[in-house]
Amino acid sequence: MLKYQQIAAEIEKYIEDNDLQQGDKLPVLEALMAQFKVSKSTVTKSLDLLEKKGIIFQVRGSGIFVRKHKRKGYISLLSSQGFKKNLEDFHITAKVIELAVRKPTRQAADNLNIELDADVYHVKRVRYINGQTLCFEESYYNKSIITYLNKEIVSDSIFDYIQEGLGLKVGFSDSFLHVGELNKTEAKYLGLKTGAPKLYVESIFHLTNGQPFDFSKITYNYEQSQFFVQTNSYLL
Amino acid sequence: MLKYQQIAAEIEKYIEDNDLQQGDKLPVLEALMAQFKVSKSTVTKSLDLLEKKGIIFQVRGSGIFVRKHKRKGYISLLSSQGFKKNLEDFHITAKVIELAVRKPTRQAADNLNIELDADVYHVKRVRYINGQTLCFEESYYNKSIITYLNKEIVSDSIFDYIQEGLGLKVGFSDSFLHVGELNKTEAKYLGLKTGAPKLYVESIFHLTNGQPFDFSKITYNYEQSQFFVQTNSYLL
Repeated sequence: MLKYQQIAAEIEKYIEDNDLQQGDKLPVLEALMAQFKVSKSTVTKSLDLLEKKGIIFQVRGSGIFVRKHKRKGYISLLSSQGFKKNLEDFHITAKVIELAVRKPTRQAADNLNIELDADVYHVKRVRYINGQTLCFEESYYNKSIITYLNKEIVSDSIFDYIQEGLGLKVGFSDSFLHVGELNKTEAKYLGLKTGAPKLYVESIFHLTNGQPFDFSKITYNYEQSQFFVQTNSYLL
Repeated sequence: MLKYQQIAAEIEKYIEDNDLQQGDKLPVLEALMAQFKVSKSTVTKSLDLLEKKGIIFQVRGSGIFVRKHKRKGYISLLSSQGFKKNLEDFHITAKVIELAVRKPTRQAADNLNIELDADVYHVKRVRYINGQTLCFEESYYNKSIITYLNKEIVSDSIFDYIQEGLGLKVGFSDSFLHVGELNKTEAKYLGLKTGAPKLYVESIFHLTNGQPFDFSKITYNYEQSQFFVQTNSYLL
């Protein structure tokens, strides 16, 4: 972790520890420099990171303010951290339905940008939140990048393993969302009725070098899941 | 528009005009500086903006690459631009169901951070895509900020008017998503069956100074809508 990331984490912790609310003002730049004993450019980088992450907003000539939505238990659609981080107050578990090395489907090959005769890890899991089904997940991992998986790994956080175990750097992702009705298989895994509403999300995760390594299809239990998205003004 | 924003727009146009695809390499920094006749720091700021917006990704020691998802007709959940920008290849229209000045509901007052006896513009619209219903929208605008609306304005893009007509600066937003079943009223407006699946999104839009000005509740026609979300590695 770089210095400015560390300071950003400390400012975030300060906001948490003091239970600061949306609109609350943070100390001025000079005070933060003194408090953390770092240069102006480091504090500026830390604040820019916190702004990108939707933790604060800066108003020119006016100050630095806390940005915090008030609702708990929502899954961020902007995080690649996985559920464990988003829903840390909840008990998240996974049941592995399938773990196999196989050839990709055409759809998986297209999204992973690999040939049809390449090898992929094919993983199917049901994830649970406090004992209720949260989602049914089907993923394809490019085996030339994700060289090894086993049942113990996929029972827990695959992304933690990819970063800490394999030492890979997870970069950006693209997700595509549709709403529809559960088919028979999805309904069975989620313990809901066929035809009940679903949120269906296809995601492609890339390494920081741009290589796609994971193509995932997730079907959410609409009774257990709710989501949030924060935008910043630079997106205008 | 600042210089670096203008250069960013030009680079984005260059990618469009040349139909560059995901993974295609852009000219090196020095070449961009020469092409646009600007300093290194301006090009760097332009590239950072394009990276935040998910248009490019930069790989240290390797270059600048195009980032472009391949699917058309998806609504970005990260844009505050409204549908017109997202779905510019489509014909988007609006039918106004209600436009009135009234007192806010408790929910609207809470989300807009105003008193129950403050005035709001209450707007209900059905929006159409190529003649099909896209969504049913109910919005509350803080009248002390959005001082004037009329039927002609709300028949078109309210956000364009807010920025260009009222000269306000739209900042960040928070959105909360749920999947559920259409109630009778929603089904009627969308021309679907009661109980059909829906995506329901509550959003709070803020000015750049942090003041919330719009609380919107949107119910999407699941047959006509699909969404995308791009993430960046700094969110890890």
